[in-house]
Amino acid sequence: MADFQEVGKQFIDFYYQTFDGGRPNLAALYRESSMLTFEGTPVMGVAAIIEKLTNLPFEQVQHRVDTSDCQPGDAEGKSIVVLVTGALMVDGQDRPMSFTQNFVLKNDGSWHVFNDMFRLVYPAA
Amino acid sequence: MADFQEVGKQFIDFYYQTFDGGRPNLAALYRESSMLTFEGTPVMGVAAIIEKLTNLPFEQVQHRVDTSDCQPGDAEGKSIVVLVTGALMVDGQDRPMSFTQNFVLKNDGSWHVFNDMFRLVYPAA
Repeated sequence: MADFQEVGKQFIDFYYQTFDGGRPNLAALYRESSMLTFEGTPVMGVAAIIEKLTNLPFEQVQHRVDTSDCQPGDAEGKSIVVLVTGALMVDGQDRPMSFTQNFVLKNDGSWHVFNDMFRLVYPAA
Repeated sequence: MADFQEVGKQFIDFYYQTFDGGRPNLAALYRESSMLTFEGTPVMGVAAIIEKLTNLPFEQVQHRVDTSDCQPGDAEGKSIVVLVTGALMVDGQDRPMSFTQNFVLKNDGSWHVFNDMFRLVYPAA
């Protein structure tokens, strides 16, 4: 059985490095059945997900991961649930923004993203 | 197949009402295989989860849900992935704190929590 902590950690490192380095390269992490809900907008499938991510209204972005938690998603070691919190800094903005993102990774021979949800988190008022 | 949006929404309403009204009553939502990672601390099983939640260092708490997103967790309608962001106000504190929480709900005849992860989110600096 895969070590879910190790797989989760490697995924997180790779995901945000790839996002910040060149979003189209994230395509390798998704499948046709993958779902992304980005700030409440749902899209499905590799092409729609990459189109959504590459059309976000910034050129340069840098993610900072503050916390990451992983749990096994089943008893068979075939899925991993990940919750990330952190901050992102986009070009033209002075201040970082807090975000949260969760993933469910599944293994069909290789690990890929089945569920992906992203939300900015504003300071509670 | 269950309507994942409707099941997810009902779950979220019930979960936070129950949490704020009487945490021990959350026991009905967990199973022996359920996992909670609360601020990075993992516990497993109904008794350990309820002990963790009831021993949090506040008496009164009120959750406010700001966003909630749901996705199906499989093609068979047997699991639902939920991501919540919001704020919580605990007794003795002037200011609400932002939080994020994700759940994977599974159906073994009734819907219950399989995965649960909670993190406070601090303003990005």
